[in-house]
Amino acid sequence: MKEEVFYGKGMAHVKKDYPDIYDAVVKLNEVAYTGKVLDYKTQKLIALAITAAASDDRAMKKQMMSAMEEFDITKDEIVDVLRVVLLTSGNPPFVKAMKILNEIKK
Amino acid sequence: MKEEVFYGKGMAHVKKDYPDIYDAVVKLNEVAYTGKVLDYKTQKLIALAITAAASDDRAMKKQMMSAMEEFDITKDEIVDVLRVVLLTSGNPPFVKAMKILNEIKK
Amino acid sequence: MKEEVFYGKGMAHVKKDYPDIYDAVVKLNEVAYTGKVLDYKTQKLIALAITAAASDDRAMKKQMMSAMEEFDITKDEIVDVLRVVLLTSGNPPFVKAMKILNEIKK
Amino acid sequence: MKEEVFYGKGMAHVKKDYPDIYDAVVKLNEVAYTGKVLDYKTQKLIALAITAAASDDRAMKKQMMSAMEEFDITKDEIVDVLRVVLLTSGNPPFVKAMKILNEIKK
Amino acid sequence: MKEEVFYGKGMAHVKKDYPDIYDAVVKLNEVAYTGKVLDYKTQKLIALAITAAASDDRAMKKQMMSAMEEFDITKDEIVDVLRVVLLTSGNPPFVKAMKILNEIKK
Amino acid sequence: MKEEVFYGKGMAHVKKDYPDIYDAVVKLNEVAYTGKVLDYKTQKLIALAITAAASDDRAMKKQMMSAMEEFDITKDEIVDVLRVVLLTSGNPPFVKAMKILNEIKK
Repeated sequence: MKEEVFYGKGMAHVKKDYPDIYDAVVKLNEVAYTGKVLDYKTQKLIALAITAAASDDRAMKKQMMSAMEEFDITKDEIVDVLRVVLLTSGNPPFVKAMKILNEIKK
Repeated sequence: MKEEVFYGKGMAHVKKDYPDIYDAVVKLNEVAYTGKVLDYKTQKLIALAITAAASDDRAMKKQMMSAMEEFDITKDEIVDVLRVVLLTSGNPPFVKAMKILNEIKK
Repeated sequence: MKEEVFYGKGMAHVKKDYPDIYDAVVKLNEVAYTGKVLDYKTQKLIALAITAAASDDRAMKKQMMSAMEEFDITKDEIVDVLRVVLLTSGNPPFVKAMKILNEIKK
Repeated sequence: MKEEVFYGKGMAHVKKDYPDIYDAVVKLNEVAYTGKVLDYKTQKLIALAITAAASDDRAMKKQMMSAMEEFDITKDEIVDVLRVVLLTSGNPPFVKAMKILNEIKK
Repeated sequence: MKEEVFYGKGMAHVKKDYPDIYDAVVKLNEVAYTGKVLDYKTQKLIALAITAAASDDRAMKKQMMSAMEEFDITKDEIVDVLRVVLLTSGNPPFVKAMKILNEIKK
Repeated sequence: MKEEVFYGKGMAHVKKDYPDIYDAVVKLNEVAYTGKVLDYKTQKLIALAITAAASDDRAMKKQMMSAMEEFDITKDEIVDVLRVVLLTSGNPPFVKAMKILNEIKK
């Protein structure tokens, strides 16, 4: 299942045209999300936090959607992540993330 | 207790000389770390992740130390955070964070 | 009046659903823009500079619009800000900001 | 006088070994700090804001020192800049900048 | 020819309204791309790498297009650049860049 | 030989304590630096460019040293990389990189 997380349109092309890169990304993904002690859901929230803090629209939207669809992560849980983004990264990425979150929920 | 988390040397000066800023930061901190659904420890790991992904030596060290001292967060838990940093932010911030983590543990 | 500056669509949802976050952001905003010595207009130009330097399309556009509408800040004043962005942050954020500025002026 | 602003140790080497780069940086500096409408001091505060928001220790310290030495910019004026940094870029760059500012003042 | 590289729509306005800035950018561009030892194509790939690593959609697309049109840089060469972006800057900017590259090729 | 490039102190600990992460980083490194068309030296200059543009002292120093030691990359070649950094990322990272480069050469 984890493979599907990053298997977006972009990665489909990578798999076909550059299989060596694809294999490295799969391996990297497995190593990233197979923590020793933290569960996968917590790690997913962490990935969401990093992309939101970096103000990256596209990555943050993808993370929010896969969080809600694959892990039944709720809006309130995502907002609890964004609270920390507000503190550590300021108001602009927080407002942007809240706007993207609200558009997804509709 | 939460107040102490950010009450470093820098903030001591802020409290004394700019109490209005200090109050806003305290309020911001409370709102950030008083999530509705996620526990404080998870939010702490998220803050650690964001500062590590941003390659910010000083902030990341402070987050690691307060994580270990106040929350008994283990090295393996921090490494599980850094696995996600490797995936989302690349090798340089990951290596830097691992080096800082190892120096703290000594 | 200052409240309206950040009272965009995203913040309307925050006010309704997460009033504690909203209050902290209002307080933070007040503390940020109530400097001891610099006037509000200069601080506004500083906020514009930071978002432009960070290449954040959405935040930079909002800052430019509120700067021109609320403070009668002129295009030449904004360009003087962007001159510093060119020096400190390079050509890509400068060109992006000039493009956004030109689209607003039309 | 403006030339001296960026004429640090690094630039001395550039001037000697790579005069073409040096000339371009001088020209860039002149164009950046010779605004049409904003005065040089305001532009200096803007440069300080951008480097502080980017959490760049070295550049931020240099900006603070040249601001205070060349323009008689006060600590309170710099703190008014950092208030905006807190709002737009979060607590870690704010705390770092306050710490650097306090160390300079001693 | 080099002048045309950055002569986009945004720069056309700069040339007309702020000729002093335009001249500085032209000079900066010449100095940047007139290396002593590296050829122009290699420097172009480096500019592409930096904008892709910074996750800047607009700048990265412009760099990819001018790379392919002016220098006959191939898709495989750009992918070789993006391999390094994956290592140094993580999966999100890599996937974004691959998506933009695939859309250009169509 | 490539393995040694990233085999710093930090990675020695990773290899011993977290072999799964180490293996993924080795694989990632191999895929990054085994381009189809660009040679390894060009890719190395690209990695150097990205870390310099990101103003990351530690990573940029490591890249410069391994560039000079392993690939006989000259100072002038690195300066040609930094010319592009000046254009795309502004004066502060350029000056910082020139300073680090000069300190290495001594």
